[in-house]
Amino acid sequence: MAFFPLSEIQSWERFYRGNFINGLSGFKSASLIATVNHDGISNLAIFSNIVHLGADPALIGFVNRPREAAPHTIRNIETTGEYSINLIPANLIEQAHQTSAKYGEGESEFKAVGLTEEWTGYSKAPFVLESPVKYCLEVQEIIPIKFNHTSFVIGAITAVFLDRQILAADGFPDLEKANIITSLGIDGYYGTERLARFSYAKPGTVLRVIE
Amino acid sequence: MAFFPLSEIQSWERFYRGNFINGLSGFKSASLIATVNHDGISNLAIFSNIVHLGADPALIGFVNRPREAAPHTIRNIETTGEYSINLIPANLIEQAHQTSAKYGEGESEFKAVGLTEEWTGYSKAPFVLESPVKYCLEVQEIIPIKFNHTSFVIGAITAVFLDRQILAADGFPDLEKANIITSLGIDGYYGTERLARFSYAKPGTVLRVIE
Repeated sequence: MAFFPLSEIQSWERFYRGNFINGLSGFKSASLIATVNHDGISNLAIFSNIVHLGADPALIGFVNRPREAAPHTIRNIETTGEYSINLIPANLIEQAHQTSAKYGEGESEFKAVGLTEEWTGYSKAPFVLESPVKYCLEVQEIIPIKFNHTSFVIGAITAVFLDRQILAADGFPDLEKANIITSLGIDGYYGTERLARFSYAKPGTVLRVIE
Repeated sequence: MAFFPLSEIQSWERFYRGNFINGLSGFKSASLIATVNHDGISNLAIFSNIVHLGADPALIGFVNRPREAAPHTIRNIETTGEYSINLIPANLIEQAHQTSAKYGEGESEFKAVGLTEEWTGYSKAPFVLESPVKYCLEVQEIIPIKFNHTSFVIGAITAVFLDRQILAADGFPDLEKANIITSLGIDGYYGTERLARFSYAKPGTVLRVIE
């Protein structure tokens, strides 16, 4: 097993170090966040650092990179208070990755990468029509992270769209059935294969596999 | 496509709603966080909501559930300032899930589930000997999330251990080669299969696949 102290990691070339550290935190839920600006122009960007904060209230958090590097999504969320998170199926990974290119604020990534805005009465933000699992949120709090000028954005889910056939009898959305991908680092996209679902763990009892 | 407004989701039975909302946020980097308490007794617990905050400084954040539900890890981090994050290969998913059982503070989950403490000179916290990718951290800040009493715990990476053969030439740690799993919801574990790595995206250029 190789060992890398921080002093060695800090000596590495910037992109090598970025790839290394980004991947360490493991497989992520890369998703497309859609917003709209004050001129009605939509924005679409891929975010991979998304967490579940709680089910009641239903809260989701995501990390926005420093504003100077990634200004549009967070500014639009501050302007309208609303956004949508759209999960990515395997057939859309090229378009999804392409949203990370630096387009100007006047140009919508939807059109640039070839995805379709889906406007509903449920959110000021559009959804991605092609996404089979998506939900809209109202922002609750934006917490500045002082160490590196990132932001932790917390939103409350207000509505969900998904293909009903991926829903298990106990409410579990089996994203694999919709070919939803997982990501690694800043540029790796992976399909999944279920190993197991396990029953609620208690000391001294044997886990049961949930079918 | 099925549509679920928040009012309907809130009317659901608690466990059904929990499964549904937990899974919505997508595939996660479930990992084992190891700590030690003031009596020297180790603690090991599975956490799935882990994010990359930045590569320089190398910062990782994770969500700790409300203290009344999950007190040990966060208390140990406050006591010692240090913890390790250990990624989970497919052959350890049962032991990893079993760490979520409510063991008393005097009982180490390492022994209870059959994993091995690995003490090093690099952290006050142990590592999981059986994990092929792991790193230790010093806590930087614990941010209380006011809406539901969870905490967002930010740590700085101080050292990394991993199998050198998973490292690509550009620093990308190909976790799939170490059979690292991804998780979904509170109880689903999945293997992965690489679809693609894509080159840095720029407007108007075609993505290249990185081998």
